Amino acid sequence: VGVVIDGCPAGVAICEEDIARELRRRRPGGNCYVSPRQEEDAPRLLSGVFEGATTGAPVAIWIENRDADSTPYDAVRHLLKPGHAQFTYLAKYGVFDHRGGGRASARETAARVAAGAVAKALLASWKIACWAYLFSVGEVICGRGELGKEYPLFCPDSRARQEVEALLDSLRAEGDSIGGIVEGRARVGAGLGEPIYGKVEALLAGAMLSLPASKGFEIGAGFGAARMRGSVHNDPFVSDGGAIRSGKNDAGGTLGGITTGEEIVFRVAFKPPSSIQQTQQSVDLSGAPATYAPPQGRHDPCVAIRAVPVVEAMTALTLADLALRSRLSHLPDTETS
Amino acid sequence: VGVVIDGCPAGVAICEEDIARELRRRRPGGNCYVSPRQEEDAPRLLSGVFEGATTGAPVAIWIENRDADSTPYDAVRHLLKPGHAQFTYLAKYGVFDHRGGGRASARETAARVAAGAVAKALLASWKIACWAYLFSVGEVICGRGELGKEYPLFCPDSRARQEVEALLDSLRAEGDSIGGIVEGRARVGAGLGEPIYGKVEALLAGAMLSLPASKGFEIGAGFGAARMRGSVHNDPFVSDGGAIRSGKNDAGGTLGGITTGEEIVFRVAFKPPSSIQQTQQSVDLSGAPATYAPPQGRHDPCVAIRAVPVVEAMTALTLADLALRSRLSHLPDTETS
Amino acid sequence: VGVVIDGCPAGVAICEEDIARELRRRRPGGNCYVSPRQEEDAPRLLSGVFEGATTGAPVAIWIENRDADSTPYDAVRHLLKPGHAQFTYLAKYGVFDHRGGGRASARETAARVAAGAVAKALLASWKIACWAYLFSVGEVICGRGELGKEYPLFCPDSRARQEVEALLDSLRAEGDSIGGIVEGRARVGAGLGEPIYGKVEALLAGAMLSLPASKGFEIGAGFGAARMRGSVHNDPFVSDGGAIRSGKNDAGGTLGGITTGEEIVFRVAFKPPSSIQQTQQSVDLSGAPATYAPPQGRHDPCVAIRAVPVVEAMTALTLADLALRSRLSHLPDTETS
Amino acid sequence: VGVVIDGCPAGVAICEEDIARELRRRRPGGNCYVSPRQEEDAPRLLSGVFEGATTGAPVAIWIENRDADSTPYDAVRHLLKPGHAQFTYLAKYGVFDHRGGGRASARETAARVAAGAVAKALLASWKIACWAYLFSVGEVICGRGELGKEYPLFCPDSRARQEVEALLDSLRAEGDSIGGIVEGRARVGAGLGEPIYGKVEALLAGAMLSLPASKGFEIGAGFGAARMRGSVHNDPFVSDGGAIRSGKNDAGGTLGGITTGEEIVFRVAFKPPSSIQQTQQSVDLSGAPATYAPPQGRHDPCVAIRAVPVVEAMTALTLADLALRSRLSHLPDTETS
Repeated sequence: VGVVIDGCPAGVAICEEDIARELRRRRPGGNCYVSPRQEEDAPRLLSGVFEGATTGAPVAIWIENRDADSTPYDAVRHLLKPGHAQFTYLAKYGVFDHRGGGRASARETAARVAAGAVAKALLASWKIACWAYLFSVGEVICGRGELGKEYPLFCPDSRARQEVEALLDSLRAEGDSIGGIVEGRARVGAGLGEPIYGKVEALLAGAMLSLPASKGFEIGAGFGAARMRGSVHNDPFVSDGGAIRSGKNDAGGTLGGITTGEEIVFRVAFKPPSSIQQTQQSVDLSGAPATYAPPQGRHDPCVAIRAVPVVEAMTALTLADLALRSRLSHLPDTETS
Repeated sequence: VGVVIDGCPAGVAICEEDIARELRRRRPGGNCYVSPRQEEDAPRLLSGVFEGATTGAPVAIWIENRDADSTPYDAVRHLLKPGHAQFTYLAKYGVFDHRGGGRASARETAARVAAGAVAKALLASWKIACWAYLFSVGEVICGRGELGKEYPLFCPDSRARQEVEALLDSLRAEGDSIGGIVEGRARVGAGLGEPIYGKVEALLAGAMLSLPASKGFEIGAGFGAARMRGSVHNDPFVSDGGAIRSGKNDAGGTLGGITTGEEIVFRVAFKPPSSIQQTQQSVDLSGAPATYAPPQGRHDPCVAIRAVPVVEAMTALTLADLALRSRLSHLPDTETS
Repeated sequence: VGVVIDGCPAGVAICEEDIARELRRRRPGGNCYVSPRQEEDAPRLLSGVFEGATTGAPVAIWIENRDADSTPYDAVRHLLKPGHAQFTYLAKYGVFDHRGGGRASARETAARVAAGAVAKALLASWKIACWAYLFSVGEVICGRGELGKEYPLFCPDSRARQEVEALLDSLRAEGDSIGGIVEGRARVGAGLGEPIYGKVEALLAGAMLSLPASKGFEIGAGFGAARMRGSVHNDPFVSDGGAIRSGKNDAGGTLGGITTGEEIVFRVAFKPPSSIQQTQQSVDLSGAPATYAPPQGRHDPCVAIRAVPVVEAMTALTLADLALRSRLSHLPDTETS
Repeated sequence: VGVVIDGCPAGVAICEEDIARELRRRRPGGNCYVSPRQEEDAPRLLSGVFEGATTGAPVAIWIENRDADSTPYDAVRHLLKPGHAQFTYLAKYGVFDHRGGGRASARETAARVAAGAVAKALLASWKIACWAYLFSVGEVICGRGELGKEYPLFCPDSRARQEVEALLDSLRAEGDSIGGIVEGRARVGAGLGEPIYGKVEALLAGAMLSLPASKGFEIGAGFGAARMRGSVHNDPFVSDGGAIRSGKNDAGGTLGGITTGEEIVFRVAFKPPSSIQQTQQSVDLSGAPATYAPPQGRHDPCVAIRAVPVVEAMTALTLADLALRSRLSHLPDTETS
């Protein structure tokens, strides 16, 4: 997997270890509750960084993947795997790949996390921070994560974590999987975002729904707002020692697509992984009914957990893009005088 | 308001009346339950259409707006209107506009609907159809709309419609507003969509969250999928007279970001309109606390209703873009032989 | 004709008269040597400007064209006009337009000049200036123009101007036309331009070859450099009171695609206008040989003259784009500290 | 050096050897007249190709460069090398690189040639062909090359080649260099190109001026057209067995920016390489005058020779882009009926 980050300014401090550290957070073998495949996510900076800082040239990162044995899939190579993208890739490109999954594989999220590490370094120079944590797994609510804190399983609440662990154990025993929700947050000043098609929430929604297995996005009160009255939902403006603030944050940090200065808060829904250890109904490539018996192997029972650092990375990339663009939105006084 | 549609192929049949008809559907005065401002949405085709069909040149449409009296706002011209984008525009551009709202105004959606009319004409040549309807207003569930049917208030279920009407009447009496959800659908063959960042759901989510007042997007089982097990959520592939189909549609019509050939189904959450006829807490431009007493006038109590044709238009624009792009995804046999 | 300028920062001072003034410079009836059609180039600012300055929203400009009588062309409506784009438009879009010319018409350059007026206003805030003048008409060399000076026929040398006028008179009598070269210049600091595909000369070349009737572009020593030796062509670096300058400017103001701080100097070749008052060999739409007898009317004998303000406008647009992008190339010290 | 080609359709036959073969053509050590550095241009296809054909995924190619010893430059590491981009890169990015050259190095053209090999494979499926050859070196005119023929030094005329070889020998003895011109051609049907900013000649000009050391571009009669009369320059349309052709080709294969079906013909001027083996006047980084004594080494005395396959590659990339876009310009009859 590789990624090229174009448009990163010169002078951003970054090194391979910064990227490796982020990659380790999403690594399947990172803890005993996520998929134990031992992928070597050692990133190589191929270009764009010189003596510990970006040069203004595109930053190219290459992540070698040594461990991808597709032989287990040989037995089911002519069957469509339920919930997977083989069928749609076949319809689109006329190519059928019976192996793990190509560009629809969650492996590609390593590239996003690597790019996100660069974006985070850039955002740091503007004191913009973003983070994410597990909001829920199935019916279990996981609490609210704080900036800068690392939680086992990305679950802030320790009691909820025990419930999640028990749930994952039983799912693994049953060969089943479960969905979950990731919550993302960012601290950023007022005035970021572009009107119409470049709204903060539009870019975040597009970024999050581009993640494998994501099925929904909401900001602030989100779908809950659809049941609220305006008199309840409207955030009053209040005076906070002279500064203009919002009295509450049902808007989730934006108005008209531009940041208010309150925390950006959003949630992303992930479906249960479609790779489960149960026989399922399917068809073969000729369209004839068949029974899909999955090859032995171990998979994530809950993709939402691994998705936490990916959501964080996509948030960083989206905000870095907007922060750069915002430098073009008006002429600084020094330039007009 | 104007819009320029670039990239529309030559030979698509379209005339001003096609556009006007779509614009009338979103017109505030179109029925007695939405805002009665009598805007003249007469569209003018400025370029790109000759003798009833597109020429390949950009299609420019101009919609004159004759009625926009901003005098009522003079009394509150130094106050921040809660829930509005004046504050964030001021932060971004250094310009404060006490009037209706500029690019954050719902007026801009007229341009989207006009462009959507052209996109629909293009999609028709590929037999792709999309439609939308009201899914809920507050707690009222509105049923499921069929392709090609027009419902008063865009509400498919007549009993629910009575409830919605009663709710809107009481909100109008209280000077309050309510949120709602719009459901969109599309019929399209398998193979549409681009991997990674151009996934169908990513482009739809970005398009929908770019709409004024939208707060959430979900596709298929959406946020519900976050509570489901894989064994329940996975749609089995079945044989339908030789054709490969899905036994159910929790995926919402896409796998790996590419259409399966099943109906695309998604929902968009809209917040309650922030323009309400109640006094609210706010601040003036200096940051001092103030009471915002809204000027007399009548506003939509539920923006989700007017949003239905806009959701439909954005769906058409998104799918037209993807359908054009899909013509580039592989070489037709005639070209390689 | 209309144009929408996206990406212009807020706070740039501009009004309709600034645009109208530039448009008058390219107006065919502006002097007796260019085409006397009396087009009303009155520009209307439709959006993006409020109280004399840009707001950050797209700047839309509409220029009404009242005078475009296509009846003279009725007699030759089934013949291909030599040197015109009707044939290629027919091949591309399947549409044949016997009238003036659509998007291949020189009328579209009005939109470029209008947009260029906005770009010039933006460049002024960074003290970047660009200008253009007539370099040659046929064999006549026209001298070198200075920044801020207006010359009749855009020809800096008055003696050369008399020759050009005599040449144009005789061409008009013969119903013939002539080619010419426009030279453009810009004063801009060092460091503008992007590596690889965004080089200053690449963007300028692309912009200039997008102009109707242009056939060539060269920067600095240009085609002459192809006959020079390195020992002659290399510009030595010299010390100018501590500042690093070039001892001469055969490079034309760029090295590696990025400005050196010396003046940018380039030339654009324009072919003789293909609309001439002489009978010419052609074919009709069925491919049968035919004689093209042009309808009476008066056309520019030399499009290079009218092209001068258009070259200037395209230079301004290209540099404004690069100047904006250059604000993203490295982090200012104030942001990293 | 690496390159990622996005937007290549699935089903294009390509393998590493196709790319390697093109790379060998531009290799400095490919013949005794160009720079003898032995770079290993072995390309690795990292993604996008499966079993000998593209999959629709981005095609990533990585070319390892084993030989780049920068020690010779240590002695002059604080001096500005005349004619090189170190100074402008310093101005732009605030980074000074005393070594070979980074993104302004001619090494980057390997990536273009590799990408061009893929573009050529794609063009072949539409029967579009492009080629290039040496048009002149200094004052020596090299003749006209035919499609599919390989000439030593890319020089079609064998007598001229002897002159060029003698010239290069004497330049090498003097430590000097010389400029040259490359001519490119393409055979392509009518109707390729986009109006206004996507004209064939605009995209070619932008592509060619993005090449290191290029200083000019002209199409058809080019700068010569600036001295011609319309009655001479206009290409008459003629009937060729029913087909509409041009009687001559001063237009160079386009009208209004769209191909006529005649051969595209253009020329690109290259300056003499600035790396010469002579002492030159310069300054050090503090701006103080200094004498630049180049490190021993051998360089190309004429970059235009090596540029031939690069011009060919850029032509292929430009036409492939336009050929893909042209599939979107109008609806095929099969789609509208």
